[in-house]
Amino acid sequence: MVASRHPLTSLSEDEITLSAKIVRGSHDAGTKLLFKGITLHEPSRKEMQQYRSQGQGGSYSPPRKAWVNYYLTGTTSFFEVIINLEAGKIESSAEVPAHFHGPADESEIIMVEKVALEDPGVKAEIEKLQVPEGTVIVCDPWIWGADGVADDARQYQCYMYMRDPNNSKEVDSNHYAFPLSFSPVVDATTMQVTKIDYLPTGAGLETKSTGPWRPTAANEYIPELNEQRTDLKPLRVVQPEGASFTLEGDTIKWQKWEMRTSFNFREGMVLHEVSYDGRPLFYRVSLSDMTIPYADPRAPFHKKQAFDLGDVGAGIMANDLKLGCDCLGAIAYKDGLVADHNGCPVVKPNAMCIHEQDAGILWKHTNYRSGRPVVVRRRELVIQSIITVANYEYILAYIFDQAGEMSYEVRASGILSTQPIDAGVDVPYGTVVHEGVLGAYHQHILSLRVDPELDGDRGNSLVYEETSALPRHADNNPHGNGYVCKRTTLEKSGGYDLESKKNRVFMIENPNKQNPVNGKNVAYKMHIPPVQPLLAEENSFHYKRADFADHSVYVTKYQEGELFAGGQYTNQNKHTSGVRKWAARNDDIANEDIVVWVQFGLQHVPRIEDFPVMPAEIVKVSFKPANFFTRNPAIDVPQSTQEFNKSVLLNGHQNGTKEVNGNGECTSCQ
Amino acid sequence: MVASRHPLTSLSEDEITLSAKIVRGSHDAGTKLLFKGITLHEPSRKEMQQYRSQGQGGSYSPPRKAWVNYYLTGTTSFFEVIINLEAGKIESSAEVPAHFHGPADESEIIMVEKVALEDPGVKAEIEKLQVPEGTVIVCDPWIWGADGVADDARQYQCYMYMRDPNNSKEVDSNHYAFPLSFSPVVDATTMQVTKIDYLPTGAGLETKSTGPWRPTAANEYIPELNEQRTDLKPLRVVQPEGASFTLEGDTIKWQKWEMRTSFNFREGMVLHEVSYDGRPLFYRVSLSDMTIPYADPRAPFHKKQAFDLGDVGAGIMANDLKLGCDCLGAIAYKDGLVADHNGCPVVKPNAMCIHEQDAGILWKHTNYRSGRPVVVRRRELVIQSIITVANYEYILAYIFDQAGEMSYEVRASGILSTQPIDAGVDVPYGTVVHEGVLGAYHQHILSLRVDPELDGDRGNSLVYEETSALPRHADNNPHGNGYVCKRTTLEKSGGYDLESKKNRVFMIENPNKQNPVNGKNVAYKMHIPPVQPLLAEENSFHYKRADFADHSVYVTKYQEGELFAGGQYTNQNKHTSGVRKWAARNDDIANEDIVVWVQFGLQHVPRIEDFPVMPAEIVKVSFKPANFFTRNPAIDVPQSTQEFNKSVLLNGHQNGTKEVNGNGECTSCQ
Repeated sequence: MVASRHPLTSLSEDEITLSAKIVRGSHDAGTKLLFKGITLHEPSRKEMQQYRSQGQGGSYSPPRKAWVNYYLTGTTSFFEVIINLEAGKIESSAEVPAHFHGPADESEIIMVEKVALEDPGVKAEIEKLQVPEGTVIVCDPWIWGADGVADDARQYQCYMYMRDPNNSKEVDSNHYAFPLSFSPVVDATTMQVTKIDYLPTGAGLETKSTGPWRPTAANEYIPELNEQRTDLKPLRVVQPEGASFTLEGDTIKWQKWEMRTSFNFREGMVLHEVSYDGRPLFYRVSLSDMTIPYADPRAPFHKKQAFDLGDVGAGIMANDLKLGCDCLGAIAYKDGLVADHNGCPVVKPNAMCIHEQDAGILWKHTNYRSGRPVVVRRRELVIQSIITVANYEYILAYIFDQAGEMSYEVRASGILSTQPIDAGVDVPYGTVVHEGVLGAYHQHILSLRVDPELDGDRGNSLVYEETSALPRHADNNPHGNGYVCKRTTLEKSGGYDLESKKNRVFMIENPNKQNPVNGKNVAYKMHIPPVQPLLAEENSFHYKRADFADHSVYVTKYQEGELFAGGQYTNQNKHTSGVRKWAARNDDIANEDIVVWVQFGLQHVPRIEDFPVMPAEIVKVSFKPANFFTRNPAIDVPQSTQEFNKSVLLNGHQNGTKEVNGNGECTSCQ
Repeated sequence: MVASRHPLTSLSEDEITLSAKIVRGSHDAGTKLLFKGITLHEPSRKEMQQYRSQGQGGSYSPPRKAWVNYYLTGTTSFFEVIINLEAGKIESSAEVPAHFHGPADESEIIMVEKVALEDPGVKAEIEKLQVPEGTVIVCDPWIWGADGVADDARQYQCYMYMRDPNNSKEVDSNHYAFPLSFSPVVDATTMQVTKIDYLPTGAGLETKSTGPWRPTAANEYIPELNEQRTDLKPLRVVQPEGASFTLEGDTIKWQKWEMRTSFNFREGMVLHEVSYDGRPLFYRVSLSDMTIPYADPRAPFHKKQAFDLGDVGAGIMANDLKLGCDCLGAIAYKDGLVADHNGCPVVKPNAMCIHEQDAGILWKHTNYRSGRPVVVRRRELVIQSIITVANYEYILAYIFDQAGEMSYEVRASGILSTQPIDAGVDVPYGTVVHEGVLGAYHQHILSLRVDPELDGDRGNSLVYEETSALPRHADNNPHGNGYVCKRTTLEKSGGYDLESKKNRVFMIENPNKQNPVNGKNVAYKMHIPPVQPLLAEENSFHYKRADFADHSVYVTKYQEGELFAGGQYTNQNKHTSGVRKWAARNDDIANEDIVVWVQFGLQHVPRIEDFPVMPAEIVKVSFKPANFFTRNPAIDVPQSTQEFNKSVLLNGHQNGTKEVNGNGECTSCQ
């Protein structure tokens, strides 16, 4: 059963179950284990090289392996093991150093909520609010962060809210409109409330004890509590012959693209072996990390910094996507598979969806002499996953076009993680978005990991182009209009920045393959939207923890196991342990086996318009061929025609017939 | 007839005809006139204030006026007049100073082609090519530019090409794959070839005389000359109840938006009186100019700098949009109206199209406790026009969403303006995109003019926000994570720049209206993609002519008639005469009647993939409410449901039913 699977296929339910069983078997019977992650341990470069080089029909397959981490329940003993599933045994096992902590998981978060809400001290605080009977109090457990102050234990900071007291029975009432000013701390090992913090609600640092609640207005997002617009008419995407892609197991083929997908608890959807027209481009592409540091310097908000992938996991938080809601047209879905705290497989149904979309005009030219237009529409393939991180939503998508372009798009939506603020107060760290509600400023900095194999070679380089003015000189630039473009090959691993004034464009290049048209090294350029780098001070924990958030591009020399820009364990981590550390090896990276890490995101200064649910902010990174093909690779896309598209004329001239006098036919004057 | 039209409605056919007649009547009978433009002279601020303040049913309407410019045919005498159409007479008339020149027009360009191709000297050059019999030579007349060298006369630089000699009869053969190395100059007044330039084709400045043609490969884009992909299946947009917008004359209403459109020969489509939910936002929005300076410093390429709007006109070059080709769904079209060289009205059929599109998810939130998702799709209204500027195409669109956002999107497509290059040669000013074909580097810098009246007031300010680290201090930022956002009001007219490291965001603000939620001035922020500013040296003509291309944002105090960022007359202009000059008045602009000019675009370093027709490069400027509304204005958009959207399941789980074991139901282990 096991050996016939492709080496990059995610663990099956049986493999997850077997992994947990093997781990259990390595401990005394009855030892309680708290599983944090069970996922495929991907084959090494060497193994995959052997596997791929044998071609079809080869008999070699790297052994299937699982990577598992788990706590001894109720203790701080935390282990990481690699299991050879074919041999049925543990290949390596190590206790994770005490300064690293495992991530949150779904059941733990729900347990923390319960612990906080049932704590007598918390109940006493709630009592002081004197809220109407039946009012529902809600607890949002937050990952602890780090400040170096009594933060060795794994713990949660709980932000407290209530549902609209006038609508207590509505489970989907937006509690973020009613933030409370006390904040219990829960120890994740003992599952006890260890203290209750009070939140600053004025202009300064001071906090005050809990007092009676002052009525404020609700701010709901569910449709039955908002009068709906009535003038939006249906717009449907109809694909009478079905979709243009094929799905065979994990392999997707579409418009000369071919790739594999996989899914794991941490990264969610991952792409493997992405190629166009049979030419390899990327061995592996994934969202490797994100950090969301907050601006408010006042305790306990100073610790607020989420790493949604490392602290919880994009796979664990993946939405069950609904037909007709999250996409239009002919939609295929793929389930994801994760493990729960007991090590049991949990299907994440419809965790990824695959569909096509129209994205306007791809290319057009009209010969003005003949009047003939040739126009081609841009069809896109979208592989999408949506994650809910308590309050926030991220709509994540790989997007492919027909001209060899791959993009990664992120839409940030959902609800602000709000905090209480006194009436009439303004602070420079946030926006009052509703009566009594502060939306603190924060950054979203994401890191996309790209492991290239451009045109089939492991030897790739990261280069950048800059365009700069040529100095005026009588010999070669007498009129001062001249400018030139220069390509620079980066020699050493490190972090690099955009420079829009120089039009600095980073490219992944294969120096071993030249384009036959112009002799240039074949390359893919990266369109990276600039993002303000991390604002936290270099000595702060926010900075140390966010290993990747200081540069738009990192490049490292490949090493096994270096998958996550913020390091393997981000939860309460206090040290550089990811890409910044790996880049510091100062490796030679020209024409080497490199990994490129692209950072992008948003500086989020909330607007009132972002509440109660924010209109998605969209950011997109694109990879475009640059002298990779010998011409526009989409020149063979069929023209956009009415026969194919069947649009409807509301008014205007009939296609092809001009009812009115054209140029030269005017007779009314002269 | 005339008085009943809305004051901002474009001239009618009758009004154009009347304008030309009045101009003709002001000259001796038989005087030949070469009309360059006839368009509405928009009412002044004062007139419009009176018109608008009277409300519905008012009897005042500003007099309808026309703005006309024209040459005395065959001379350099160039006039600009304003005509009161109701009085039937010229209100003002002036000869345009001799250093300004009128733009090209369609018939003139076609005449220049003819003149060049029939010139005996040019024919002699063609003879030297020794091309196969029947080979078709093509002439692309280029606007002259400026270099201060014998450029007082209005003239054209003609770039010469040939069609594939193996396919001479194909009128749509891509001649840009066969650039020739001689270049006739045509005087626009005398319509004579005045000289023939030779183009540098090597690495240096040297040129050589025309010799026999060396066979090279074609590079065609028309479908019948390219094998087409066969695996793209139809994707149709079906709107069973029609579109959600209404069109009444020039007024478009859609999803709480209301605006007027107009159309003129220079700017093409223009928006007026744009409002959301009855609250005014922008009095007038238009693409005001663009400049495309080229990098090659060698004569005659050093003069290559197009101002497609000022040198020709976006209205004149507007495509006749075709149903089912340029958009999908239910499409409404509007004609444009321009005047030809005889002053006759010429309908530009289907010059603008109006339709809706789906643009993915607008907002989503899932309450992880109840599991209930609420998801709303982003419907957009698109008002589109496509222009063909000889080789290039621009797909221009105003895009509106349901959350109060207005965008202006530009897609650059079409064909590179190519030049010949010898085999094996490489130059630092361009990319060899095909055998013997150089695509020189160039910039596209566009200027969007925005005349705001945010929330109904003329007193608006341009402000910017920056986010910056708070210094670490024991009192207010003990952990070094803190950062703040500061808003600065610009006091003086001028040019201003983005600064992505500071996350500098420009906003238009109404300091006279505060948001009731947080007391902040109501504002709209601008998302402007950074573009490398003009690279030409400050003393170059490229720089002086491109008045706007040195800063991402200009702000000026409103003055009548200041509509075009590069000045009224860009053709062969050698002096600053647009927004840079107006900004230099150093006007007070805080809480004043301001105009904001947004510059954006592309540094285009051609790739081989951009030939023969380039996949569209997309740039977009967005205007988003920032504390303008009291909550997300799209919270009332109906949910995205399968009932409404009718998507099709290819595979995956049925909506709402999980066929597999969910969390907590695992029994196979433990």
